Amino acid sequence: MTENPTACLLIIGNEVLSGRTKDANLQFLAQRLGELGIPLREVRVIPDVRDTIIGTLNEVRRHFTHVFTTGGIGPTHDDITSECVAAAFGVPWVVHEPSRAKMAADYARRDPPVEFNAARLRMATLPEGAVPIECAMTSAPGFTMGNVHVMAGVPRIMQAMFDALAPGLGRGTPVTSATVHALGVFEGTIAEALEAVQGRFPALDIGSYPFYRAHGPGGFSGGGVALVAKGTDAQAVAQAAEAITAMLRDMGAEPVQGEPPAA
Amino acid sequence: MTENPTACLLIIGNEVLSGRTKDANLQFLAQRLGELGIPLREVRVIPDVRDTIIGTLNEVRRHFTHVFTTGGIGPTHDDITSECVAAAFGVPWVVHEPSRAKMAADYARRDPPVEFNAARLRMATLPEGAVPIECAMTSAPGFTMGNVHVMAGVPRIMQAMFDALAPGLGRGTPVTSATVHALGVFEGTIAEALEAVQGRFPALDIGSYPFYRAHGPGGFSGGGVALVAKGTDAQAVAQAAEAITAMLRDMGAEPVQGEPPAA
Repeated sequence: MTENPTACLLIIGNEVLSGRTKDANLQFLAQRLGELGIPLREVRVIPDVRDTIIGTLNEVRRHFTHVFTTGGIGPTHDDITSECVAAAFGVPWVVHEPSRAKMAADYARRDPPVEFNAARLRMATLPEGAVPIECAMTSAPGFTMGNVHVMAGVPRIMQAMFDALAPGLGRGTPVTSATVHALGVFEGTIAEALEAVQGRFPALDIGSYPFYRAHGPGGFSGGGVALVAKGTDAQAVAQAAEAITAMLRDMGAEPVQGEPPAA
Repeated sequence: MTENPTACLLIIGNEVLSGRTKDANLQFLAQRLGELGIPLREVRVIPDVRDTIIGTLNEVRRHFTHVFTTGGIGPTHDDITSECVAAAFGVPWVVHEPSRAKMAADYARRDPPVEFNAARLRMATLPEGAVPIECAMTSAPGFTMGNVHVMAGVPRIMQAMFDALAPGLGRGTPVTSATVHALGVFEGTIAEALEAVQGRFPALDIGSYPFYRAHGPGGFSGGGVALVAKGTDAQAVAQAAEAITAMLRDMGAEPVQGEPPAA
């Protein structure tokens, strides 16, 4: 089995760092990239500061197969992602003629027509050599430059851009996972036995996540643990889930594979 | 006005990178730190991988006044944050006797009593010289080591730990913000005028965030922009909000300071 490609996500925006906006893109991309076998290995949230964006881009694009960015490609003065990507790659930032023409046609069709002013033209200005990412949600493109994929921050537009991008990404082996829940079980009680299971499946990530529900489905309340086996070897994942289930039964618990019991 | 202290957040956990768990700590910490005048300048989400945690800790603790971490301080094998902090600081990882005694008393009081096994003792094992962060939610401590504050990943425990920590953090000038909403206004239309406002208030961050509501309060649907002025000079923030309001009125819009109109 060859090594999977890797992904890093840069969330660019003061509004996430200030807490004004709750990021809604991380989880979507994490799940989709896992399915494609391009696991997300790091996320950074950075401000709309030129030197920070350029420095971070140049650091992470050398360490990961793919870098995805969200945010900062609109028409206002705080939208500086695109010009920073050009600077990071050391190429000019130039009007991309097919994108300009597409946006001009879009704006002319609107009723009332939208003026294609200098601010909007910035959205058709791309690093030289970039390939636009087009989607049905907007005529203003995202783009791919080298291994950096630049997408909008607005979730529905980001998702449409990712859908357009995904078929062209080289895939790895999909990451699969299996979850075993057990109510009324403390992490500290099972830790040693769980570590032994991890030892039997060194290629998998086995994680333990306590949960507590004050008012769950069916009136359920109480706590327990969710034990998750994850990796690219689907057969080993299934075997690990069986081993975790057996371990919990041996300890007198009533494990449930999949979603936690409702009552 | 002296420079504000700065903060970096490390979210440590495979479960966030895989998309299994949606982070719920970033926004809370971003808002609280802004109020304390310790603005959050970067967030990284990293996996439960020893070398990655140690390397990242040693990088960011030199660049920011404070580093906050969430996750990885439970009793299971994938909880390795504490020992990685010890390694990053080059100090032994040792049982912290007051924390051990507190946890032992807590476990003995439970009905039925909880065994204080080796896995649970790991939660009382801290980098030598660390100061525990205690809270009412759990007897297992977080801790501060140098400028690194290590907290639980479970939001209600993290929040209690932060509440315990906050009074001892050196404060800066609180970051305040003012928001002006305008319905039916496109970012591209106001970009140039908004940049001129930013030019008049160089010490502030002025941001533009489009919004769209399919089904808002009072049956409102439609889009617009939220324009946000943010900074440590509260008077300048208020002046910038007035300037933005005047700018929007000049363009024929009906700006609203604060929350967007309901209908």
